Amino acid sequence: MIKVVLIGSGNVAHHLIQAFAKSTTIEVIQAFSRQKENLLPLLDSDKITTTFTKLAAADLYIIAVSDDAISEVSAQLPFENRLVVHTSGTASMDALDAKNRKGIFYPLQTFSKHRTLDFNQIPICLESQNESDFEFLKKVAKSVSDNVYQINSIQRKALHISAVFVNNFVNHLYQIGQEICIENEVSFEILKPLILETANKVMALSPKDAQTGPAKRNDQQTIQSHLTALTDKNQKTIYKILTQSIQSNGKKL
Amino acid sequence: MIKVVLIGSGNVAHHLIQAFAKSTTIEVIQAFSRQKENLLPLLDSDKITTTFTKLAAADLYIIAVSDDAISEVSAQLPFENRLVVHTSGTASMDALDAKNRKGIFYPLQTFSKHRTLDFNQIPICLESQNESDFEFLKKVAKSVSDNVYQINSIQRKALHISAVFVNNFVNHLYQIGQEICIENEVSFEILKPLILETANKVMALSPKDAQTGPAKRNDQQTIQSHLTALTDKNQKTIYKILTQSIQSNGKKL
Repeated sequence: MIKVVLIGSGNVAHHLIQAFAKSTTIEVIQAFSRQKENLLPLLDSDKITTTFTKLAAADLYIIAVSDDAISEVSAQLPFENRLVVHTSGTASMDALDAKNRKGIFYPLQTFSKHRTLDFNQIPICLESQNESDFEFLKKVAKSVSDNVYQINSIQRKALHISAVFVNNFVNHLYQIGQEICIENEVSFEILKPLILETANKVMALSPKDAQTGPAKRNDQQTIQSHLTALTDKNQKTIYKILTQSIQSNGKKL
Repeated sequence: MIKVVLIGSGNVAHHLIQAFAKSTTIEVIQAFSRQKENLLPLLDSDKITTTFTKLAAADLYIIAVSDDAISEVSAQLPFENRLVVHTSGTASMDALDAKNRKGIFYPLQTFSKHRTLDFNQIPICLESQNESDFEFLKKVAKSVSDNVYQINSIQRKALHISAVFVNNFVNHLYQIGQEICIENEVSFEILKPLILETANKVMALSPKDAQTGPAKRNDQQTIQSHLTALTDKNQKTIYKILTQSIQSNGKKL
């Protein structure tokens, strides 16, 4: 069995511990959390440590903490020349202290504690300083996911920015959609099949080919009528800018 | 059998003809198209007319044409006092000529000709001038969908604006995500599980509760690093405005 120590107790740490628990080749022998109770539903008490000096010997240390804590945490590890990776989409590999061999183990998904995810479908983006560590990380990643990619730091940053657009910003547009519904006393439920179909459509079609609507058709009458109906200044600004963006794309090509 | 005549040959007309074909209570006895061949894969040739004066007697006429053609088409109908509806999310009921009884039959979904949809899941928003017509439209709608709603014109307009945000604008953000991937030579495939999960998440959680990411966390370092990395002026503007919008929401509540 490959021995893994998880450092952190947030959403990513939770999901990784659960995913590794199903693997037949990986064992999470220990996890570190400042508060033991954060991990208690997932691991036996004796497998959780709150002290860096008590970290067990393992083949891989996965640091799943917030971006700005990675440097500090990796500097506090009481050993050298072991394989240490972080799970961040943004932090560089250099955020990790140079006393250990470095790598990245970035599962690209939106994690919430109370949502069950099929980890198998989650893309894991890997990077490492040397080839043998990469092969090892690939083995670990493949034990929990069918979608494993070698991604360098520049690509990983691009993916993360892209993820902000297709996840955080998209979700915010859902929120605006819901606010408009609430204001006009219609149920947001009515829009849910549309939300799902919009996402499903780009599994097969490119987003550019999937585009429809007043902006794409340059239907000025509808656009103006929507802008007049929107009472919130912020919603109006977003409507204008995204409409312009859809239209300028159309013109360029 | 309830007799329906479909007027139009676009995406909505196609999907409605296919949906009614599966119904045991509704029969599309005829369809009108300026070009007969547009409907030939769906209906027998003798059921397609290209001339308004040859429209058959029916219980319901569904006008599924572009918004700006609704008035003209409804004025050309060679009969009076029959039930005539349109399928638009934006056009008012008054777009229909007053010589017939008016109504709205608005299936809220993004239709593309070559995508198979489960029509049963598609919300149909109904409105009519009088109660007995409404009950009749409800019967027709329920024969093809489990999600039938009575929606007045103001609500329908709000739903349509909301749909622009959660469908057209969301799809455009997918497109930007893909462009960032292409520019940095990473596969857009890696983002697809995230796109699906983002949509699935709001089936159960409110979008506000589902929000994550640098804007929500007010992670200025990541936001600045993303803005520096984005080379396209338009993408930068959209990034800034949606980040601000997410943050101002957080502050208000």
